[in-house]
Amino acid sequence: MDADALISCGAMTLQFVAEYWRSIGKRPVVANIQPGYLRQLLPLEAPEQAESFTSIIKDLESTIMPGVTHWHSPNFYAYFPTANSYPAICADILSGGIACIGFSWIASPACTELEAIVMDWLAKAMGLPEFFLSSGNGGGIIQGTASEATLVALLAARSRIFKERKVEDPTLTLGRLLDQLVVYCSDQAHSSVDKAALIVGCRLRKIASDADCIMRGEQVQAAIAEDRAEGLIPFFIIATLGTTPTCAFDDLVSVGRVCEKEHLWMHIDAAYAGNAFICPEYRHLLNGIEYAESFDFNPHKWMLVNFDCSAMYLKDRTHFVDAFNVDPLYLKHAFQSSAPDYRHWQIPLGRRFRSLKLWFVFRAMGLDGLRAYIRKHIELAKYFISLIKPDDRFEIVFPAAEQLGLVCFRLKDSPNELNERLLKALNEDKRIYLVPSMVKQKYILRLAICSWLTEEKHVRFAWDIISEVTAKLLSK
Amino acid sequence: MDADALISCGAMTLQFVAEYWRSIGKRPVVANIQPGYLRQLLPLEAPEQAESFTSIIKDLESTIMPGVTHWHSPNFYAYFPTANSYPAICADILSGGIACIGFSWIASPACTELEAIVMDWLAKAMGLPEFFLSSGNGGGIIQGTASEATLVALLAARSRIFKERKVEDPTLTLGRLLDQLVVYCSDQAHSSVDKAALIVGCRLRKIASDADCIMRGEQVQAAIAEDRAEGLIPFFIIATLGTTPTCAFDDLVSVGRVCEKEHLWMHIDAAYAGNAFICPEYRHLLNGIEYAESFDFNPHKWMLVNFDCSAMYLKDRTHFVDAFNVDPLYLKHAFQSSAPDYRHWQIPLGRRFRSLKLWFVFRAMGLDGLRAYIRKHIELAKYFISLIKPDDRFEIVFPAAEQLGLVCFRLKDSPNELNERLLKALNEDKRIYLVPSMVKQKYILRLAICSWLTEEKHVRFAWDIISEVTAKLLSK
Repeated sequence: MDADALISCGAMTLQFVAEYWRSIGKRPVVANIQPGYLRQLLPLEAPEQAESFTSIIKDLESTIMPGVTHWHSPNFYAYFPTANSYPAICADILSGGIACIGFSWIASPACTELEAIVMDWLAKAMGLPEFFLSSGNGGGIIQGTASEATLVALLAARSRIFKERKVEDPTLTLGRLLDQLVVYCSDQAHSSVDKAALIVGCRLRKIASDADCIMRGEQVQAAIAEDRAEGLIPFFIIATLGTTPTCAFDDLVSVGRVCEKEHLWMHIDAAYAGNAFICPEYRHLLNGIEYAESFDFNPHKWMLVNFDCSAMYLKDRTHFVDAFNVDPLYLKHAFQSSAPDYRHWQIPLGRRFRSLKLWFVFRAMGLDGLRAYIRKHIELAKYFISLIKPDDRFEIVFPAAEQLGLVCFRLKDSPNELNERLLKALNEDKRIYLVPSMVKQKYILRLAICSWLTEEKHVRFAWDIISEVTAKLLSK
Repeated sequence: MDADALISCGAMTLQFVAEYWRSIGKRPVVANIQPGYLRQLLPLEAPEQAESFTSIIKDLESTIMPGVTHWHSPNFYAYFPTANSYPAICADILSGGIACIGFSWIASPACTELEAIVMDWLAKAMGLPEFFLSSGNGGGIIQGTASEATLVALLAARSRIFKERKVEDPTLTLGRLLDQLVVYCSDQAHSSVDKAALIVGCRLRKIASDADCIMRGEQVQAAIAEDRAEGLIPFFIIATLGTTPTCAFDDLVSVGRVCEKEHLWMHIDAAYAGNAFICPEYRHLLNGIEYAESFDFNPHKWMLVNFDCSAMYLKDRTHFVDAFNVDPLYLKHAFQSSAPDYRHWQIPLGRRFRSLKLWFVFRAMGLDGLRAYIRKHIELAKYFISLIKPDDRFEIVFPAAEQLGLVCFRLKDSPNELNERLLKALNEDKRIYLVPSMVKQKYILRLAICSWLTEEKHVRFAWDIISEVTAKLLSK
């Protein structure tokens, strides 16, 4: 275990990944195996003696690769993208090589400081409000996932309302309060909101979105009024920018105004779409963010930064520190008042040096390069629209003002069951991979541009397959 | 952004890390900078244009390195170790290169399957009870941190008790139940237990440990009786194997028997010490684990696997799935009944291909190699004891039966204030790095063997410094 082995074995691994990238377009995008396949191929117990690194690398192709779903295949159009790039991988090598645990400033100052700096860079590149910069009472932090960001925001909001209500009623218990608390989100919000509400244990009310899948202030206001009339305590809302089913954008301005009036904490989940805000032409979709207490999106989805890297911004960090602060002596240090200790802003204690990934990607790509990358994906989605639109068998559904890199479609005037059979036939064909969604009682197909290898020819290929599989299905 | 750049830039990064490892012993172990140092060195905004990779790597030494606390320096004795090794870094390159998100089996089957297999390997290597193997109702999962494992276990236990109590009283609300629930842990347990209780919102009662810092069943039984008499509902206990302050081991057998009788969920947090259980001579410290519902330790602490990799085992996964299951259409797939979907066992949705790290380390080191590594650290701690023990100025405190790689000491018959001054003088000297702890009103110094580079000569060096700084302090 030494420096020489790192160089030689690392080079072998890089070579393997490079070959993988070069061949990825030729691999079947979805694994063609049955559950339990790997257990047949591997020993039942860990080896007693060390094996050669060559033999480990050799086994990758025969055991692991057959079971991989290739998220970076140019034929992968499922879910939303997950990012990847050589500078982010290099930054991860460095993070692994330094292997410090930056839970407090003193535990490795560069870890905390670089995070604050690159999160400021990112905030400025997107034109976020000043109160999200680290120079004020707020700041940015890298969370693992948008799910964790939602949960953390919800916990901070719970801490705030509990503190406020305790002033009015010192006998109030958290349990009694919890039974009255209401969280709101659109009926289009991500399942991680359900999960966060389940974890915190408060009720979640889903607001009916409009015909374009947009949550609007008027409906939020009505729900709050109803709930207050029943003695409940509305306190938190998640607004989504770029919903998972159709990439719809909640109306931040009208929702935000209601939040201000009704003293609700607004958290914005822009997991996928947030990345586009580095392009000035999409910045207007952020109008209304000035009403938010917290904001999160995933550079690990669409900004060339490998998972995990979820960029969360807080307006007032004291609510977070209040919610999470537990400080034993072995974690205390002399600089606690002059530098942020990110452990108080998150659920885990330990943290990797993840800011290196953002730093490397910003520098190796430049903001210009990142914008070009985002725009290319959006262009490819438009290209797909140009192919499917003239075809009378299909309809494009929920064409929000900005669908970004996602296109939702279905067989025109057809029952859900037929669309479900189409999706099934496409995925059994295995040349491309899509996932469906159910929106407003409609079963829809989602085509999301995901890979950095996707070009027009791949989108054309996807369209040809969709057209061909549809013809076969409809002829039955 | 292509395969060629990955190979060339990756090689540059590996070279940087290799040089770092070669020079780490000569670097000051703790960063010698003031808060805000990095902001003076970096631009205020992200670059518009791409920069060369060479310039990025060049900046590492001048900007980042001065602010790094070197956790792998042979002079680092603070906290507990965090692991590192070349095979784990190579596995991370691979995880980054493949960059699949394994939240469900179908999303990348190899990701789920390899995790189940290597977690079984690990369970067998430690002699864990059969019910923790994936072949039964339980199984292993890689969590990010022990903090998350504690929280996840607590949430599953809350879900179980709520379901049970609802049967007796269908009008029961979660809030009403929460106000009655009690979590127990030793007064020596890690701060992450406080944090988990804070997040879930239930009261935490700390059980007084005995003179050796061990929590015993008798005290737990008494606390439960008191709380039941007050109408509270005891439901969950964290037993710690290898506490952070002194590496004490709670008495699992007596605590476990109480849990069985009183229907409490016992979660075991063995974050650091758990790694030693792959050595048969320490396996007896696990006696009583048969009473546990869940168990967690961190291979990322002491088993050469880079952070993050926390190995959690569940006896019955249905409690977890009950607590976390939210299943929108875009995440459903045809194999849900035949393969585990780890997203229901954890807080985040997304997950990296972390099992590769365990697989690579097991194979590149062999169980024999891992055992040798653990034993070497324990020998080094014993060597430090052999140096300090004959010195009348010091006393070794809380010498539990097995202190593993940690030694706790203080100035004999001295006030806390003097020990605090000693710790401060040592850390201002900056040649070695320790953190203190406060145990039973005693301020103590902790010396934890942390780095894979630490040899007898380094321990000797540490002792010489401690001796020298003490002499200077006492002569004042």
